[in-house]
Amino acid sequence: VTSETEFIAALRGLAADPAARGLLDDAAVLELGGPTLVLTHDMIVEGVHFLPGDPPGDVAWKLVAVNLSDLAAKGARPVGALLGYSLAGDDEWDRAFVAGLKTALHDFGLALLGGDTVALPPGAPRMLGMTALGTAPGAVPSRAGALPGDHLWVTGTLGDAGAGLRALRGTLAGGEALVERYRNPRPRLEAGQRLVWLISAMMDVSDGLLIDASRMAAASGVLLSIDLSLAPLSEEYRRAVGDDLEARLAAATAGDDYELLFSASAGNGAGILALADEIGVPMSRIGAVEAGEGLRLDDAGTPVPLPDSLGWEHGRSKS
Amino acid sequence: VTSETEFIAALRGLAADPAARGLLDDAAVLELGGPTLVLTHDMIVEGVHFLPGDPPGDVAWKLVAVNLSDLAAKGARPVGALLGYSLAGDDEWDRAFVAGLKTALHDFGLALLGGDTVALPPGAPRMLGMTALGTAPGAVPSRAGALPGDHLWVTGTLGDAGAGLRALRGTLAGGEALVERYRNPRPRLEAGQRLVWLISAMMDVSDGLLIDASRMAAASGVLLSIDLSLAPLSEEYRRAVGDDLEARLAAATAGDDYELLFSASAGNGAGILALADEIGVPMSRIGAVEAGEGLRLDDAGTPVPLPDSLGWEHGRSKS
Repeated sequence: VTSETEFIAALRGLAADPAARGLLDDAAVLELGGPTLVLTHDMIVEGVHFLPGDPPGDVAWKLVAVNLSDLAAKGARPVGALLGYSLAGDDEWDRAFVAGLKTALHDFGLALLGGDTVALPPGAPRMLGMTALGTAPGAVPSRAGALPGDHLWVTGTLGDAGAGLRALRGTLAGGEALVERYRNPRPRLEAGQRLVWLISAMMDVSDGLLIDASRMAAASGVLLSIDLSLAPLSEEYRRAVGDDLEARLAAATAGDDYELLFSASAGNGAGILALADEIGVPMSRIGAVEAGEGLRLDDAGTPVPLPDSLGWEHGRSKS
Repeated sequence: VTSETEFIAALRGLAADPAARGLLDDAAVLELGGPTLVLTHDMIVEGVHFLPGDPPGDVAWKLVAVNLSDLAAKGARPVGALLGYSLAGDDEWDRAFVAGLKTALHDFGLALLGGDTVALPPGAPRMLGMTALGTAPGAVPSRAGALPGDHLWVTGTLGDAGAGLRALRGTLAGGEALVERYRNPRPRLEAGQRLVWLISAMMDVSDGLLIDASRMAAASGVLLSIDLSLAPLSEEYRRAVGDDLEARLAAATAGDDYELLFSASAGNGAGILALADEIGVPMSRIGAVEAGEGLRLDDAGTPVPLPDSLGWEHGRSKS
């Protein structure tokens, strides 16, 4: 038990309102009359969630994208955002950030509603926060709805951003497209909105497939069985990292994917594949939901022990 | 023009949605059907907005209070909050923060809805953010409604928190009650909710009466004339600082008051005083709204030049 886990548990004790979903979901879901509100807040810290050398415009994009990924996971339509910005005394950086923010707001049709700007003490790392607000058409998927017999699915490909980060750090050769996936994640907003009617549980994959799947398993009170041979890998990933079991395990434990993980009844498989085809977002069946608890891994039928680290546990705890 | 001012101006260019109120108000006001939503986000940084030695429970209280003060200024009823928390590796501090947060949430009837917890790099100052969401009964006062002929009012007393900070820093003798005002500000929620029907413009006083009044003057396109002899001072403030013109100017330029500044038509004066009496919150008429722009100061009729600093311009820009 880390002190971070303890802290989150203590916060959870304060979050009795049903809208908080026990701080166990991607977002808060609030019914005040009118449309259902979906609210999420994410922070990113220089040196932890982004690199000091990352282009400021990409940092802005990422801040928006990680928040919208939470809305996507709840099938919500983005409405607006509040920005918490820290000035570190570098005007050029700030200008480039605003330019990137403008692009992201425009691309996602997101209104900048307000926020706060603070000056940092000299030498302090930048710390940026965003609150995003969206509306949902009705029922809002939670992490807790997976049922034994359901299938487990994931959108897109896994591990690209993690490999991109390794490329940036110089521990992996090549991988320009992978770096792009790290710097410019694309939240699966349309997929999330369209999937709402087909799924039983949904969340975004931000800290790594395995750790996020373990959170869905815990929230739903089920066992998730994942066949690593079905983990979707991009061409670029295969080229740069490979596609053996080790490469698949790396992809399944890397963070920053911002794909959607969801469970759905077996009968909805055809509908999901048709949707994937219609909107041009790959959706791959990677496992099954069973009675029990936790995760079970195999590689095309051969049991695989759980790795020591299931993903990125430190530095970020979504609540 | 500071780089911070430039940055805010650049952000303003991105905030075209009417709900953003041009980033010139205390909060965003959003109509999505159902009740009117009021949203605000504030950040506080260790060493800038609170002292490293401040009790963590008081820091939690302050984070909640500064956000709720923005809701109070819009006459909104608090609904819930999202917390952005940074772990600096001191479990005891974190536990005390949670205890203080619990007290504040309970006292204000505020639901903790969600948020994000991040780990800081070693040595980085704590940086805490909160987004508060409230609902408003209907019309939401802005800073822009003051009309020539209106009177200018303020709740409570001014300068106490600023004097408390000086006491904490050892540059002012005595002042325990003043330190309490610095550490445990009380947002004027009931006053704000009840005043909505009586006022023409309203905002909270967070950076200092004069600088905040100058913002109201700019937003409303009027001149605000303030008689410093009418600035309400507490007994404790008079004892510790005095009540000559210098003391009044200090009170009018100190930050962290979290009182409400509002304009109202002359005919509503009796109603305002009756409300003040009913809810036990002092409300003092301190000046008048005139055609023109900016601020004009006097001391019981004797003109007073504007001081070089109208308040706390750096370290925080609300938008």
